[in-house]
Amino acid sequence: MKSGLLKNVHPEKRFEQVYDYILERIRRGEWKEHEKLPSIRMLAAEFGVHRLTVFKAYQLLKQENKVYVRDKSGYYVQPGSLLSPAAQQDPIVSAYVHESHLSEIHQVEAAYQFSKALLDPNLLPNRYFSEYVKNVFDLYPKVLGTYSTTQGDLELREALTRYFTKRYRFDLTHDEVLITSGSQEAIDLIARVLVRPRDSVLIDRPTYSPAIDVFRRQGAHLVPIGIGPDGYRLDQVEELMKKHKPRLFYLNPTFQNPTGYTVPAEQRKRLADLAAEYRCLLIEDDPCPDIYFGHEPPLPFFAYDTAGMTIYIRSFSKYVAPGLSIAMVACRPGLMSYLVKAKSLSDSGTPLLNQKIFLHYFFSERMQRHLEKLRTALAIRKDVMEEELAGTGWEWKSPEGGFNLWIKLPESTPMERLLVTSREQSISFVPGSICDPLRELKTWIRLSYSFLNEQQLREGLRRFAGIYRELTTGSNEG
Amino acid sequence: MKSGLLKNVHPEKRFEQVYDYILERIRRGEWKEHEKLPSIRMLAAEFGVHRLTVFKAYQLLKQENKVYVRDKSGYYVQPGSLLSPAAQQDPIVSAYVHESHLSEIHQVEAAYQFSKALLDPNLLPNRYFSEYVKNVFDLYPKVLGTYSTTQGDLELREALTRYFTKRYRFDLTHDEVLITSGSQEAIDLIARVLVRPRDSVLIDRPTYSPAIDVFRRQGAHLVPIGIGPDGYRLDQVEELMKKHKPRLFYLNPTFQNPTGYTVPAEQRKRLADLAAEYRCLLIEDDPCPDIYFGHEPPLPFFAYDTAGMTIYIRSFSKYVAPGLSIAMVACRPGLMSYLVKAKSLSDSGTPLLNQKIFLHYFFSERMQRHLEKLRTALAIRKDVMEEELAGTGWEWKSPEGGFNLWIKLPESTPMERLLVTSREQSISFVPGSICDPLRELKTWIRLSYSFLNEQQLREGLRRFAGIYRELTTGSNEG
Repeated sequence: MKSGLLKNVHPEKRFEQVYDYILERIRRGEWKEHEKLPSIRMLAAEFGVHRLTVFKAYQLLKQENKVYVRDKSGYYVQPGSLLSPAAQQDPIVSAYVHESHLSEIHQVEAAYQFSKALLDPNLLPNRYFSEYVKNVFDLYPKVLGTYSTTQGDLELREALTRYFTKRYRFDLTHDEVLITSGSQEAIDLIARVLVRPRDSVLIDRPTYSPAIDVFRRQGAHLVPIGIGPDGYRLDQVEELMKKHKPRLFYLNPTFQNPTGYTVPAEQRKRLADLAAEYRCLLIEDDPCPDIYFGHEPPLPFFAYDTAGMTIYIRSFSKYVAPGLSIAMVACRPGLMSYLVKAKSLSDSGTPLLNQKIFLHYFFSERMQRHLEKLRTALAIRKDVMEEELAGTGWEWKSPEGGFNLWIKLPESTPMERLLVTSREQSISFVPGSICDPLRELKTWIRLSYSFLNEQQLREGLRRFAGIYRELTTGSNEG
Repeated sequence: MKSGLLKNVHPEKRFEQVYDYILERIRRGEWKEHEKLPSIRMLAAEFGVHRLTVFKAYQLLKQENKVYVRDKSGYYVQPGSLLSPAAQQDPIVSAYVHESHLSEIHQVEAAYQFSKALLDPNLLPNRYFSEYVKNVFDLYPKVLGTYSTTQGDLELREALTRYFTKRYRFDLTHDEVLITSGSQEAIDLIARVLVRPRDSVLIDRPTYSPAIDVFRRQGAHLVPIGIGPDGYRLDQVEELMKKHKPRLFYLNPTFQNPTGYTVPAEQRKRLADLAAEYRCLLIEDDPCPDIYFGHEPPLPFFAYDTAGMTIYIRSFSKYVAPGLSIAMVACRPGLMSYLVKAKSLSDSGTPLLNQKIFLHYFFSERMQRHLEKLRTALAIRKDVMEEELAGTGWEWKSPEGGFNLWIKLPESTPMERLLVTSREQSISFVPGSICDPLRELKTWIRLSYSFLNEQQLREGLRRFAGIYRELTTGSNEG
């Protein structure tokens, strides 16, 4: 079955992957406290590696107190390991130090939320919402008494089909559209349907942090691919596809989260071809193509893909209506049938009310006009943030859209103390390591300019820069 | 690790479990077409059984065309196996014949929906809904612009805590309450957090069909326990707990789906004690305690449990507002932290709008008064159904609450033809095998009286009884 799985992998990586494999199963609780672990012989056979490689992995785990040895009978799971409830109690600190999850950072109350890549609710046309909702109840008086179908409301799927065909040149029918409860559900469904333990998954580095968690939970072997201001190095992408035969490539090519980078149009066509050649599905997560500050971004991959290898995820939560949690998935019918089946077991359909409100709100002229205002407001906030940080000496590429600045701090930055001290002073931000499948990038941070107004931005950033100065001057002096 | 797993299992069961294990992995696509399967030696070692046992399992799978042999190199997955998209195209027929899913039956349009255990939308106070919604927008003008926390809106969790403390004598704090997008999500989260492949799960027989699918997908070994008009045989429950050491017991003790049976109060306390003794979590699914026709049902298990072994799932979809998809999970903090974490990766929180509407609607005096009308309306519909079926000779126990009649047809019933012919004449019902973890109970059916009004019920049931007579007379004559 899995024999020879690591045959093509560079020798020093094999050790690492066996180590990861064991640790991940302990972390997920599949192998429980005091449970006997697989023998060296068995793992060596399963991975197709030398027994010494497995032995070394166990030795390191033993050193790290993750496993223990009982007489000569083998290795056992050390109790008090990673998934203990206690370790989860102090989310923010333990999150950064041990295992990082964006949702835990968001649980922390802070006056200056630079960690939330969300729209400030004050920027939404809130007073018009209730009108649309009243319309919805007039049009569908029994909407609260009715379940949606699993795939989603037909009227909404038809409207989305028209919209994406016209605006983004998608070749699409309403049968190829699924409505999900936000993009998080979409990523989760895709991972559950497509990824089996030890499948390789190509993933941006850095990337959207919860995607890392979802694919990891599914047991995937994550293969990171660097994304830069000019997109990917395509020779590198091809090499990784050839070497790892990834099941899928999770990417976020337009105003990428966290970097803000956009993959140029000319790369999109070639990447779609590569995906077809190597039978690697492209999972295109596209949460904010409308939030551009200069030119419109290139068309989504889905529009370039003629081989049906792209699954397109479009969230409408980020800047249309977070409180509705509506997202769309577009893909070809073969894949769609699996996704619909998986969804029927995980939530039996996104609430009909939310779909109907979204339908009447999003496609209204008022909303479409409102997008223009939104772009202006966010461009101003971005400018304010860049202005405030101009004197710090930190480095970033000014984004052409989206919600974030992806900033490189000096190598000497005491990141953990910066995180803890900021938190004490009611400031939150996202440490770069959370966005990195390799958990490195320890001197990068993501600051969002979307959630706070100009005044709050200025005030919070001055405080934040002050904390930084104090910590680094202090450490220089100390 | 898993060595000796089956040591305590009766010998003839070992074969079956090895067989199930292999088949399940093929079914889930973990072992793909033409992939080499684990060797007999390896599986024998892993399960701690004799190699002959594994050999026999492979031989049966070969006979059934699930695997094939290549020269002498071992067993391989036969292509065209269970999960092929083609097999999913004609849901209703292939569903019954091959693999059955309730969601597929619900996809079929029918004029006489006896398969939907849902409330007729006309029985809900629809014209009052929009008032509540307007209130919600007045009270929380930014509700559509705001994400909920993962655990759920605090105001709603507090209100539910008060309600369950007062009405059901729960010992509960708002930290022990999670809001989910319907009970389906709750079951799925619980399965993902608690069940590992090959864990034993006790489950009612018959039971709520999607729960079977969820636990099976998680790789659980399902251990069925019969439920009768008087509840369980407790000696049998204890024996199964002792023998299988189940991780959890999924049960639906109040107006059980599909049977309508209720576990009596005196059994509840003793079952809670058994669960504590054998460290078996009780997953109590409670979708309709308010829908009683005579006396109120006993208190939920959660109220009897002093050891913290119960996870209580209360759906509000069935009879309050299907279009909102709101459910609640109550459990102790240790378990709660895992559930919240799992939810953060699967949908990042139930939409806030739905939670706020539910809050103001469910706790209103009008809704609480409306429940009384609902009980009367459903009692009448149940009587109509029983009246119409009185002459058929079919057998059922008259339910004291809920939405369904669980009916035993004569042994000679040609069930598959009944299903297909009914479908052709626009009548849907649920075949009993779908509700059975063993996929037997082939002469039972579930008919719901909740979705159609009296006239539709009479008309549809006359047609249905007519189809039955025709089929059985035809087959007697033929």
